[in-house]
Amino acid sequence: MTKSYWLWYPGDMELYFAMKQNFSRVERGFSWPAFWKSEGFRNRVVFRRTYLLEEETEFRVTCRGQGHVVVGEDKYPFGKVITAPRGEVGISIHCARIEAFPAVYIEGETICSDRGWMASDYAAPARPAGFSEYFTDPWQDPSVWEYSEKVYSPVSAEKVFVEKDDRGNVVETRAPGPGAVSGYLYTFETELTAMLEVLNTDGTPIDILDVKTMQVCCGESREEALDMLHCYYSWQVDTETGRCPRCAFRYVFIPGRAREVYAIHQYVDIPVRAFFKSGDGLLNRIWEVAAHTFSLCSGIFFIDGAKRDKWIWGGDAYQSICINPYLFADPSIDRRTLTALRGNDPMTTHINTITDYTMLWIFAVWQHCITYHDLEYLASMYAKMQSLMDFLKDQTDEKGFFTGRSGDWIYVDWADLDKEGPVGAEQMLYAGCWKIMGKAASLLGREGDAALYEERFSILKKDIEEMYWDGEKGAYVDSFTSGRRHVSRQTNIFALRCGIAGEDRRKQVLENVILNPQIPAVTTPYFAFYELDELGQEGMTEALYDRMVSYWGGMLARGAVTFWEEFDPMVPVSRQYDMYGDRFGKSLCHAWAASPLYLIGRYLVGLTHVLNEKGETGFVLSPSLEHLGTLDCGFQVCGGEKTVRIRHRNGILRISTDAENGLLILGGKEIPLLPNREFQAEI
Amino acid sequence: MTKSYWLWYPGDMELYFAMKQNFSRVERGFSWPAFWKSEGFRNRVVFRRTYLLEEETEFRVTCRGQGHVVVGEDKYPFGKVITAPRGEVGISIHCARIEAFPAVYIEGETICSDRGWMASDYAAPARPAGFSEYFTDPWQDPSVWEYSEKVYSPVSAEKVFVEKDDRGNVVETRAPGPGAVSGYLYTFETELTAMLEVLNTDGTPIDILDVKTMQVCCGESREEALDMLHCYYSWQVDTETGRCPRCAFRYVFIPGRAREVYAIHQYVDIPVRAFFKSGDGLLNRIWEVAAHTFSLCSGIFFIDGAKRDKWIWGGDAYQSICINPYLFADPSIDRRTLTALRGNDPMTTHINTITDYTMLWIFAVWQHCITYHDLEYLASMYAKMQSLMDFLKDQTDEKGFFTGRSGDWIYVDWADLDKEGPVGAEQMLYAGCWKIMGKAASLLGREGDAALYEERFSILKKDIEEMYWDGEKGAYVDSFTSGRRHVSRQTNIFALRCGIAGEDRRKQVLENVILNPQIPAVTTPYFAFYELDELGQEGMTEALYDRMVSYWGGMLARGAVTFWEEFDPMVPVSRQYDMYGDRFGKSLCHAWAASPLYLIGRYLVGLTHVLNEKGETGFVLSPSLEHLGTLDCGFQVCGGEKTVRIRHRNGILRISTDAENGLLILGGKEIPLLPNREFQAEI
Repeated sequence: MTKSYWLWYPGDMELYFAMKQNFSRVERGFSWPAFWKSEGFRNRVVFRRTYLLEEETEFRVTCRGQGHVVVGEDKYPFGKVITAPRGEVGISIHCARIEAFPAVYIEGETICSDRGWMASDYAAPARPAGFSEYFTDPWQDPSVWEYSEKVYSPVSAEKVFVEKDDRGNVVETRAPGPGAVSGYLYTFETELTAMLEVLNTDGTPIDILDVKTMQVCCGESREEALDMLHCYYSWQVDTETGRCPRCAFRYVFIPGRAREVYAIHQYVDIPVRAFFKSGDGLLNRIWEVAAHTFSLCSGIFFIDGAKRDKWIWGGDAYQSICINPYLFADPSIDRRTLTALRGNDPMTTHINTITDYTMLWIFAVWQHCITYHDLEYLASMYAKMQSLMDFLKDQTDEKGFFTGRSGDWIYVDWADLDKEGPVGAEQMLYAGCWKIMGKAASLLGREGDAALYEERFSILKKDIEEMYWDGEKGAYVDSFTSGRRHVSRQTNIFALRCGIAGEDRRKQVLENVILNPQIPAVTTPYFAFYELDELGQEGMTEALYDRMVSYWGGMLARGAVTFWEEFDPMVPVSRQYDMYGDRFGKSLCHAWAASPLYLIGRYLVGLTHVLNEKGETGFVLSPSLEHLGTLDCGFQVCGGEKTVRIRHRNGILRISTDAENGLLILGGKEIPLLPNREFQAEI
Repeated sequence: MTKSYWLWYPGDMELYFAMKQNFSRVERGFSWPAFWKSEGFRNRVVFRRTYLLEEETEFRVTCRGQGHVVVGEDKYPFGKVITAPRGEVGISIHCARIEAFPAVYIEGETICSDRGWMASDYAAPARPAGFSEYFTDPWQDPSVWEYSEKVYSPVSAEKVFVEKDDRGNVVETRAPGPGAVSGYLYTFETELTAMLEVLNTDGTPIDILDVKTMQVCCGESREEALDMLHCYYSWQVDTETGRCPRCAFRYVFIPGRAREVYAIHQYVDIPVRAFFKSGDGLLNRIWEVAAHTFSLCSGIFFIDGAKRDKWIWGGDAYQSICINPYLFADPSIDRRTLTALRGNDPMTTHINTITDYTMLWIFAVWQHCITYHDLEYLASMYAKMQSLMDFLKDQTDEKGFFTGRSGDWIYVDWADLDKEGPVGAEQMLYAGCWKIMGKAASLLGREGDAALYEERFSILKKDIEEMYWDGEKGAYVDSFTSGRRHVSRQTNIFALRCGIAGEDRRKQVLENVILNPQIPAVTTPYFAFYELDELGQEGMTEALYDRMVSYWGGMLARGAVTFWEEFDPMVPVSRQYDMYGDRFGKSLCHAWAASPLYLIGRYLVGLTHVLNEKGETGFVLSPSLEHLGTLDCGFQVCGGEKTVRIRHRNGILRISTDAENGLLILGGKEIPLLPNREFQAEI
């Protein structure tokens, strides 16, 4: 029996679940679907394939939707065994479905739904059908994602009293006044994305009258759970199941008497395939908390945060795609996320309405494709990369600078930038996109395209150097239009990242901006990633290490068990969960705060994924043992297919791998790493 | 309390039900969804409106979907009473839904979902929200159409025997052989679109074991119902409801013992507002059968046929839109149909994959808008008319002739045409579209557009005259490419219809083609409509009358109770239901066969809907009393808002109307008809 997948029109599965994901945000009793154009799936699809059959063969088609099968000239219903005659046989499967995307599954010795089927929507040219390793069984419905589940009990249950304070917040009190409410606070070991199940302490279901008055208050923080009025998620249990809807929390407060509480954690089982243990306890803790943070924000897609927004954001996803090879090395979540973000052609809106997120999608596709050498995905997305670039090009001014359209969101970072006229940071990214397009075209053998795109990069780079470089300040300014000559870290970091600055200006930027304490510090982990990545690129491992342990260590010092959307060490503890003018507005488990996984793997362990001149996947290892001390860690390499393990103890460095094309750089020397032969050296 | 509608993104309701409609075809046990690109609805919409409130006011939003309401800066869940403060208040309603289109309903004294709300999909500019007079109650779900129902009992039940004949067909037998099957045939008065309910003769439900073996065979014809193997619809009743799925039939055959059978006819209640009774019994019968045919093919949309395809076809719909004012005068089914057919922008495929059906959509929009003076609809569709014309223009050759793209279906008619190179009939329609575009632009006050479109028409007309006119034959040829100089009725009829032929050539065409028995006759009612319409335009009422009573009368003579998809008087009775190589392939209730309603109303009663120079709706009446004899008939006029009644008996003609702008033409004289003042004349 050959291997069958469920098949659909390419992208439909991703677009369908992306809607479910982006519509899943709930806050204080109302639903908050994402505020951008929703990209729909198709409702009418045909799958086609021609077989050359050596003998008569049987097959059966199952469909989620309605339609029929055509074999040669004859029509057959779904669900019945069909006999195809020997010789050349054209088969088409007609499929329609309104409420979800149409999908088919074909079982047969020879004719089955393996790769090789083409899908058409009757408008665009036929394309290879979409499939996923998660949908391979005939009884599945690919519009229903089957989560893995794990049941957790709280690590503690304590009786607490809460009452309203002067500002109307509900807070814990040790001396309960007349208006105080008592209840039980349940604490889980760490944050989960779970359905809560609540029972009486004797294990019996909650009585229906009890259900109506029982409020289950959840919180990422203890403070949030206890504030019955302002916590994001406050549920009544479902009378049939005894469960609350799935949401992210660590703390649960239930006013009234004690209950028995379980959390049924639901997740997509993406195995953690890296491990990291060094002699530096703080670094180890940062790695572990980042790993848990990243896992909670990685499901069907890379989302921004476990509690909120639970949306798929382009810039956040780019960083997750950079982090992924250093934890999961799972290319399929990259593809699902990228496909969902890009949506359908023609492109009519910016990804998440944000101009820079549209651009970072190009960076993300490229990052994915070179990490896993995923040329199939690159080829399948190339036309959409081109139409995205056309979309951007239509939004440039007469000088060729990208301006966006009125109403577009130029985000860059939660920071004070001068956004008058064409925004500097956007030009850096826009140029970077053309540079990537040149490389992508070249990798696909489209040399004509490559030359055009490289030329666009060169021209834009020259114009940026001319208009945005401020010789006196020795830095790039945010805007040349306003005349304010405002210098920000963000604009200059993107200039470095996108290959704008030459050697000399690169040095000036480092000195005058990156290492200059006069320039306002970055306060989001989002931009901390970009900043530290540049320190790493410059080989400034010392500075990178210091900033990482102080910034992420700072969150740990505040009791973080997952890393936060934003952290400013200057903000007092009493307001540390504030964001967007909301006392519990901050997401305490945010993917873009998990970048230490990348930074540690990439710059301290020193592992880089590369393609050699033959186009083969390989890796370079250049460990910074001075920051790690003793070490035992392992990572996936070569497109996630192979492993490398690095151990350092008692002055002996040992490296073993099953991969070809490994290269160790140690003390300035290049040492090839041979597969299945342990390398040893005294340090 | 002001009047509330359910609101949605404009077009979503139509596109959603169009999918349901186009996916509803079932044949002999399998589903057959329409084979063209399906145009989807939106999944994420926002409705916005700003009120200037004189005082605080309450309202409540109900949503089919998920989301929330924003009043000023504050968010509220659906279903709760919200208080809006006095002053200027911006309200936005955020709504998401995957399985159907999002819709909202707003109840309140001042703030309610009447007209005035704008809808946005976050990509295109905001547009006035969609609504329908069918969805005005808060408990409705606009994704569920509530059909009207009427229960019918069969007019006869007879015991019959059937057996297989030599060719494998199952036919009635008077002398049952050993393999014969007996059962009961139930005949209804006429064709219905109904769910059958089957009970035992004592009124009890069918036993579950009985259900499993009981086959309910339906047929438009007696022959079809009796052929258990080849009838289109053969059901098992649902064990819970005792009912079969909704389908079209007149006859029901149930092998085995006698049963009690009811038909629950489901329909959209579009009132028949015209009546017609003349001294000509055959004409009256044609009118009545056409009216029943048309009603069965008019539901949420104009569909082609009641039994099959049940799809929405552009060319068919155009004729239905021409017929509509002479029976229902219901502009809203026009709009639903036109909106559904056109789909979304950008346009990527031809309507129903047929190039001429794309063009006829322009004719149909125009026909609708001038009949009902529906400038609001014209304005709302104008951009889509333009993008459709751009789509066509992209498919022209270097001479400017329309060619379509490879794979596009150039239909014209079920007839033998020379389709080599640019097809003549297509050029006529294409030119006709530019002519209409000129008039539409002018009506909307877009004079620049109008001039451009008129110029396009002129140039194309000139080129057509040059390339397609054959001076020797005195007719237009199908193709100039092939050199075969083939002359068809179809090409020449479209040349007349689209204003290509000048006075002289028009006469030649009439003589050499239309009235020339050497040119193969039209065999579809589809093209008979176009042909007879030209006879009518030429004032050849006699010829029109003769052809109509012979063609449609011919179907009546064969026992038709509804008019057929195709009728060729030369085909023997034994093969009269054949089509597409299928013994019961022909649809016996087809909208395009209902055109006698139009032809009688337009040319025998002589009623034309017009706009006067002030842009007001009016009508002209020019009755052909010689064909009608005594007469009592009534029609809607002036956009369906007013009525005209015409009576003729004992030599006295009496005409009464409540409309302004009526004009009678009698014996060559123009006589204004005054509202609410009966006109009388001796004839």
